[in-house]
Amino acid sequence: MPRVLDLDALVERARAGDPRSVGRLITLVEDGSPRLRELMAALSDSAGRAHVVGLTGSPGVGKSTTTSALVRAYRATGRRVGVLAVDPSSPFSGGALLGDRIRMQEHATDPEVFIRSMASRGHLGGLASATPQAVRVLEAAGCDPVLVETVGVGQSEVEVAGEADTTIVLLAPGMGDGIQAAKAGILEIGDVFVVNKADRDGADQTARELRHMISLGMSGEPGAWRPPVLKVVASRGEGIDALVAALDEHRGWLASSGMGDARRRQRARTEIQGIALAALQARFGGVGSGDVLEALAADVAEGRTDAFTAADRIVASVAG
Amino acid sequence: MPRVLDLDALVERARAGDPRSVGRLITLVEDGSPRLRELMAALSDSAGRAHVVGLTGSPGVGKSTTTSALVRAYRATGRRVGVLAVDPSSPFSGGALLGDRIRMQEHATDPEVFIRSMASRGHLGGLASATPQAVRVLEAAGCDPVLVETVGVGQSEVEVAGEADTTIVLLAPGMGDGIQAAKAGILEIGDVFVVNKADRDGADQTARELRHMISLGMSGEPGAWRPPVLKVVASRGEGIDALVAALDEHRGWLASSGMGDARRRQRARTEIQGIALAALQARFGGVGSGDVLEALAADVAEGRTDAFTAADRIVASVAG
Repeated sequence: MPRVLDLDALVERARAGDPRSVGRLITLVEDGSPRLRELMAALSDSAGRAHVVGLTGSPGVGKSTTTSALVRAYRATGRRVGVLAVDPSSPFSGGALLGDRIRMQEHATDPEVFIRSMASRGHLGGLASATPQAVRVLEAAGCDPVLVETVGVGQSEVEVAGEADTTIVLLAPGMGDGIQAAKAGILEIGDVFVVNKADRDGADQTARELRHMISLGMSGEPGAWRPPVLKVVASRGEGIDALVAALDEHRGWLASSGMGDARRRQRARTEIQGIALAALQARFGGVGSGDVLEALAADVAEGRTDAFTAADRIVASVAG
Repeated sequence: MPRVLDLDALVERARAGDPRSVGRLITLVEDGSPRLRELMAALSDSAGRAHVVGLTGSPGVGKSTTTSALVRAYRATGRRVGVLAVDPSSPFSGGALLGDRIRMQEHATDPEVFIRSMASRGHLGGLASATPQAVRVLEAAGCDPVLVETVGVGQSEVEVAGEADTTIVLLAPGMGDGIQAAKAGILEIGDVFVVNKADRDGADQTARELRHMISLGMSGEPGAWRPPVLKVVASRGEGIDALVAALDEHRGWLASSGMGDARRRQRARTEIQGIALAALQARFGGVGSGDVLEALAADVAEGRTDAFTAADRIVASVAG
C-alpha cells in the first residue's frame, strides 16, 4: 500500500530546518505536485521573511564561485542560507550541474546551507512559476538570505530581477564592456554590479565603463538607489565582505524607501498571473472536440487564416 | 483633418517591394496598431514564403558582423533579403543599436535589403508576439531569406528557435566551451553551429568540444538532422559560403523530412496562444470594480493568502 504523503508533518519538519524535508518540499514544487496548492497555502504566511538575492550573468563570469563565496561570508555571521541554482533544463544539464556541485561542495555538509538546482524550462514564464514557490519553502525553513543564481542574459535575467529583492549582475573583464552590457539589457536590472576576476587585465576599465553607463541611466531623483560597481576575486574571497555590505545596504534602502514592499507586490502579481494564465492555457487544447488549437495552427501556417482570428476563436471558447 | 491610413494601398506597395511601405507596416506591428488585425488578415496568405533563419549567441560573438556577411552572400546570388535585429528594449539601446547600424551600413542603401531593429521587451512572451508579424511583412515583400538576429542566451534563444525555420547558434573561441554551451541550454536549439573569430586561439578546440557535446545529444534516429559546426571569420567573409550552403541544406532537409511544416505549425500555435493569452491577461486588471489583481497581489505579498487561491479568483472572474 503506497504511503500517503503527510504534508503537515513534512511542513512542520521543514520549518524546523530539517534539510531532507526541505528537499522533499522543493521536489513537490519542481514536479508541480497535485499537493502544491495545499503546500503553498500552508506556507503563505512565510512570504517575505528572507532577503532574496538574485545573481545573474553570462556563462563563464563565475556565478557559482561568487555564490559559494557569498554563502561562506553569510555563514561566518551565523545565518542560515538557501541557494537556488536555476538552470535551463537540458538533456546536457547533468554535466553542467556537476560543475556547480563541485564548486559548491565546501557547503555540502553544512546543515545550515540548503542548496538546490532547479530546471527553469517547461514552466510557463520560465522562472516565474516555480522559483517563488521554492523560495517560499526556503523562507519557511528559516533561510535568510535566499540566493537565486541563474544563467544567461536577456529574458532570464529580467525574470530573476523580478523574483529578487536585490539583483546582483556579475561581469568579468573583457566580457562585458559598457555597450555590450547595454545591448544585453542588464543595466536596468542590476541593484549591485560585480566585476569578478578583478585581478585580470581590463577590470578597472570594465568597472569604469559600467559606472559611466549606469550614471547615464540614472533618473537623478532624490533618494533613488545608485547601483554600486564592486570588484571582486570570488575564487579567493577578495571583495566579498564589501559585496555583503552592499547587499545589506540595499536591503536597508528597500525597507526605508518602501520599494521593498512594492517589489514584493509586483512579484506576487507576476506569480498570480503566471498561475492564472497557465490554468487558462491548459483549457486551450481541449476546446470543443479534438484539438482545435492544432487545427487552427495548421490554418495559420498554411495561410488560410491569420493568428488574430484564430486567437479570437480560442478566447471565445475559453472565456465566453 | 488627419489622413486615414490607406492600409490596402500600403500593403500593395509593400508587396511590390517598396522599402518605405515595408517600414511603415513593421512600425504598425511594433506599435501594436489597432489596424494590426486587419494587416495580418491581409498578409495571411504570405505565411511560409521565406526561409526564416534565426541567428543567436551571447553578446560579443559577432552576430551583427555575421548577419552582415550573410546578407552580402545572399545578395551576390540576387536574392532579396530581410533582416530583423531583435534587441531587448532599454533606455540604453540607442547606443547599442548605433553599433549595429554601423556594422550593417554597407547594406543601408541597397533597395533589395530590408533591415529593421525591433525591441523585444514589453510584448507578452518576448519575441513571441511581434516577430512573426514582422516576418510576415517581410515575406509579403518578397524577402527570402528573412534573417532574425537576437541577443542573448537562455529564454530569448529558445524563443528565436521557435520563430525560425533554421537556427544558427554563434559562438566565439574561449566564450563557449562545451560545458558552458550546455549550461546555457543552446545545444538543443541550434540547427547550424558557427564558431566565429576562427582565426583566434582555441577555435579548433571550441569546435571539437561542440561536436562532441552535440554527438552526445543526438538521438541516432535515421534521417535526423546532424547539426554541423562551421568555423568562420565573419569580418573577412571567410567560411560564409559554406554557411550559406549549410543553411540551404537544412532548408532542403526541412522540406524532405516534413519537419518544416511541423515547425511552422508549432510557430503558428505559439503565435495564436500568445495573442489569446494577451487578450485574456488584458481582462485581469479590470475584473470586478477596481484593480482586483493589485489587491490580490498585496494579499499574497503580505502572507494573507497564496498565489493559487488568488489565481483561482482571477480565472473564475475571467473565464467563468
